[in-house]
Amino acid sequence: MKTLLLHARTFARLEPRLKGREAVLAIVTLDDAGRWHNAYTSQALKTPPEVHLAYGNVDAFYSPSVRDFMLAILKSEAFDWFQSAAAGIENPALASIGQKARLYTTNHTQAEAMAEWALWQALDFLRDGPGHRALQRQGKWMRLKAREMQGSRWLVIGYGSIGEAVGRRVSALSGVVTGVRRRQGPAPGAARIIPPEAVAGELPGADVVLLSLPHTPESEGMADEGFFAKMRSDALFMNLGRGALVDEAALVAALDAGRPAYAALDVTRIEPLPEESPLWRHPLIAITPHDSSDTPGTIARADETFLSNLENYLAGRTLTHLVDRAAFAA
Amino acid sequence: MKTLLLHARTFARLEPRLKGREAVLAIVTLDDAGRWHNAYTSQALKTPPEVHLAYGNVDAFYSPSVRDFMLAILKSEAFDWFQSAAAGIENPALASIGQKARLYTTNHTQAEAMAEWALWQALDFLRDGPGHRALQRQGKWMRLKAREMQGSRWLVIGYGSIGEAVGRRVSALSGVVTGVRRRQGPAPGAARIIPPEAVAGELPGADVVLLSLPHTPESEGMADEGFFAKMRSDALFMNLGRGALVDEAALVAALDAGRPAYAALDVTRIEPLPEESPLWRHPLIAITPHDSSDTPGTIARADETFLSNLENYLAGRTLTHLVDRAAFAA
Repeated sequence: MKTLLLHARTFARLEPRLKGREAVLAIVTLDDAGRWHNAYTSQALKTPPEVHLAYGNVDAFYSPSVRDFMLAILKSEAFDWFQSAAAGIENPALASIGQKARLYTTNHTQAEAMAEWALWQALDFLRDGPGHRALQRQGKWMRLKAREMQGSRWLVIGYGSIGEAVGRRVSALSGVVTGVRRRQGPAPGAARIIPPEAVAGELPGADVVLLSLPHTPESEGMADEGFFAKMRSDALFMNLGRGALVDEAALVAALDAGRPAYAALDVTRIEPLPEESPLWRHPLIAITPHDSSDTPGTIARADETFLSNLENYLAGRTLTHLVDRAAFAA
Repeated sequence: MKTLLLHARTFARLEPRLKGREAVLAIVTLDDAGRWHNAYTSQALKTPPEVHLAYGNVDAFYSPSVRDFMLAILKSEAFDWFQSAAAGIENPALASIGQKARLYTTNHTQAEAMAEWALWQALDFLRDGPGHRALQRQGKWMRLKAREMQGSRWLVIGYGSIGEAVGRRVSALSGVVTGVRRRQGPAPGAARIIPPEAVAGELPGADVVLLSLPHTPESEGMADEGFFAKMRSDALFMNLGRGALVDEAALVAALDAGRPAYAALDVTRIEPLPEESPLWRHPLIAITPHDSSDTPGTIARADETFLSNLENYLAGRTLTHLVDRAAFAA
């Protein structure tokens, strides 16, 4: 008998799907007020229980009681499997769980919503959203020239699950996608795959440049003065990866100098971005608060990954999206 | 020997493609300053020439000398063929040319850019663009829930070239499209085709409702109080057709009452929309100045239609997108 830890909201949503598992699985829940319950019996628990399995999703990680959720995992002697709702593992909290758990599985279901974010930002740039809104505020009927997604040239740096989700959509809309990753060979949605060393040579030909790669020592600050200087003066720069990929002072200077034309950022070096940051008020920057994956669809797809892996776990089958333990070596 | 009328900018763009036709075709140009030239010899002409063929595109129709362009056609005794860059024929100027010309051909190449406009507006609504921009102005890092294109339910009223161009894109992005047109049976991009009588029953189930049909006595004011009352309180209403399809006072009242949630309009009853119109400043309306088709791609595709039809004409073949003369009966 294993004990599974869920946020109370997650259990409420998944209860119909978890019925009939009482014989092999105990479930404990933690709610936003920090209260513990036995999920099947609704009995309150006095102390944080010993748990073996946990599903850490937005319910848990954006809860006021996130610390209790974490501690229950880290203090459980025989903690065995953690299902994350995120693709990345570099967050310190997730890394500490990774060191504790025997099995750690990730989730690539955020990619769909993140890819739609990229389409949204690119269309708003190509159609001159800022220009149209400025004219609307003035009550001025003046036709503006727009550019088309069709035929637009994309450089997608980092062609993993997110990059590919973007590439499939852009190519379906007749854009032309160059994907960047170490492993060469064809990939869905990409007209070409090139290695990281070839990025500099491709920047001058891209209408849209998207960062969709993790933060590593190699990618740290990769979008710097020299990077922006190679971009087109009519190009869009977007970051869906991590804030640390970008030299933000260099980005502001590059925009002020007219190359690239515009930037859309879902991530920043410091998050939350402080109110006094000049990024907020730069007329050529669109900022979203790292919420590109925040859709009901993302939550539903992550739940499906968890439920499917729970079936795998209980049946003794191999879990999908299992992370190699070496990735968490301290 | 036939004489073709082009705007000077159009000839400058197409000159390499029109070379070698001097033996069978004379070309005269009109520029923005109202000056006439023989295109091949650059010789100035004193008076508006007699013309047989004309290509009326944005160069001509947004030129200060548009009236001279029109008059040259209407005063030419043996005017034979007019190639329009537009899909519609209900504009009075186009209708008068249609009554004059033996052959009148339309153009359906605006649909691509217009469909991208619809994607842009829908994504900006689904991702809560207005909410994100308001938070950015305040320098406030607050995650907002977005909705997804994937799985969104579209009701595309008018499933001609524009509706289908929208439907193909939305379904490629995993949206679900119901197309409305008289002729039943399958159509690209649409999960279902329904007849106009079935629209009222479908409105309550649509996340996005798009008007993409011409202005006729039947469609006049079709989006009225009863129409909006059947929409969802979280739905988007868009108009890519003609302003006269919408009862604008009813739209404002409906938005104020909370149903639909938002409107995006590329067309209005009076164009240009007067500066004092309340539509400009309504917080739940996005307005673009009838420029959804204004892209370099639209111009290039219209040119291709013209060049291909010119080949057809000179070879004595049937022209594509020929309009039945009965459509212009006064």
